Amino acid sequence: MTSYSSLPNKLASSPTGVDYAYRDVGESDLPLILLQHFRGNLDNWDPALVDDLATARRVIAFDNAGVGGSAGTTPHDIGQMAHDAIAFIAAMGFTRADLLGFSIGSFVTQEIALIRPDLVRRLVLASAAPKGADGIHGWAPEVIGAVGTPETSAEEYLGVFFTSSPSSRKAGQEALGRMYSRTEDRDTPTTWAVREAQYDAVCTWGIPDHAALQRLAAVRQPVFVANGDSDPMIPPRYTHLIAGLLPNATVKIYPDAAHGFLFQYHAEFAADVTRFLDRPESQASEGA
Amino acid sequence: MTSYSSLPNKLASSPTGVDYAYRDVGESDLPLILLQHFRGNLDNWDPALVDDLATARRVIAFDNAGVGGSAGTTPHDIGQMAHDAIAFIAAMGFTRADLLGFSIGSFVTQEIALIRPDLVRRLVLASAAPKGADGIHGWAPEVIGAVGTPETSAEEYLGVFFTSSPSSRKAGQEALGRMYSRTEDRDTPTTWAVREAQYDAVCTWGIPDHAALQRLAAVRQPVFVANGDSDPMIPPRYTHLIAGLLPNATVKIYPDAAHGFLFQYHAEFAADVTRFLDRPESQASEGA
Repeated sequence: MTSYSSLPNKLASSPTGVDYAYRDVGESDLPLILLQHFRGNLDNWDPALVDDLATARRVIAFDNAGVGGSAGTTPHDIGQMAHDAIAFIAAMGFTRADLLGFSIGSFVTQEIALIRPDLVRRLVLASAAPKGADGIHGWAPEVIGAVGTPETSAEEYLGVFFTSSPSSRKAGQEALGRMYSRTEDRDTPTTWAVREAQYDAVCTWGIPDHAALQRLAAVRQPVFVANGDSDPMIPPRYTHLIAGLLPNATVKIYPDAAHGFLFQYHAEFAADVTRFLDRPESQASEGA
Repeated sequence: MTSYSSLPNKLASSPTGVDYAYRDVGESDLPLILLQHFRGNLDNWDPALVDDLATARRVIAFDNAGVGGSAGTTPHDIGQMAHDAIAFIAAMGFTRADLLGFSIGSFVTQEIALIRPDLVRRLVLASAAPKGADGIHGWAPEVIGAVGTPETSAEEYLGVFFTSSPSSRKAGQEALGRMYSRTEDRDTPTTWAVREAQYDAVCTWGIPDHAALQRLAAVRQPVFVANGDSDPMIPPRYTHLIAGLLPNATVKIYPDAAHGFLFQYHAEFAADVTRFLDRPESQASEGA
């Protein structure tokens, strides 16, 4: 099987007029669609994670509207981002999919499950927070100060996505090495306009609104929620909150890990996701 | 040190006119007060757990108003139970304490932290659910059918407090053996009137009320929330929910364990509680 790091960039044309950039690997009837983090494009998925996931199923990473190599404009709200992602999934010809959303991608994933429930079989939410949760508004100053600046350094990235322990930091260096091993046909970098629009959307999502927490009661699908125990961007408190608000969630917190826990533990996380997605329907509500 | 199973029953007289039955073991300036589960009296604490906890601090178990050997009347609501517990703590001469609430005792503990925050240094919530949480109202029929009947068998107790695995069931038999090793000076059994009043209070606590979930945002103390992964009485979903709603919680879910996880894992749970209560103030907000 071709590694994610050497997959071609493809384009899917949506009836909405947007050409979406994507990469596609592995085989299964039902695909797993990956929804990327703040400012991330196709090159910001750790190839090791995608390859681990793709041993068990078809995995598709894409740039949402306006991001990286996709055409269109990045909207200022999660609701429109969900509609844009739904348009990509429709452009690919899928009527049902599993979704894995990471960070802002987990916000979009929650919204898709609420807007278009019959499209979604199961959800994986990595470093997620529910809309309206108290305490997430705008992220901590040191976090947005590190990953929200015009030029972000590897050191700033590592400081948010990995902990300061030698083993986490080493895992971060290795993940960065894998992401940058692709030297040709890299994705188009995300622009400052994308950063601004996505941050508007993140801040709007984080406006404290206790009533909005109740929305998650409507998500009936099995959900796997996961995070690092030391994520400074979306602390694990919100992983627990989501797990408690959802009727049917399984939770895992990975030790000595931050926002990039899914890269740090790519093999273990991929195995956990695979086990969750492969669970028979009768056991799909196990856990929490 | 005397084992909990051979401690004398003592009485503390409150200015409210109620004589409270209690047992008292271990030494420390700040005591750890235990708040008991539905229909439980002093004999329903596993002596092994109390003894493990008491190696590190003073531990006090008591019967709330109307329960077991205590005088007074059991009220029909958690709020009055909290006032009754506060009256006991005052009768003992304490102005500050750590609290460990188990099941309905965890409801009372949450309420105390909200009514009288300066009384509470840190909280341990075992098999807890927040007031108003969707899905806890009245407990599942098989649960209240097992532990809510006039005469409850050991088999019914084991079915709710332990899982069906051989090792959990064995732990349950051992816990029961320790609880019944005391043959003299046992506590007064709880009455049917206590069962009725406590069940009213539990059902009232469980009336779905999303707005009430927000109350926990006011609990600023460090909290350790714990449960078994298979608790049929208060599923671990609610442990996650509490951990997400509280600003400062640490969570642990014990594997292959049900409502009685704290008896099944008495040594491990006591060590976890001790570590949590002994944590320096500067690290008290760690975890989740």
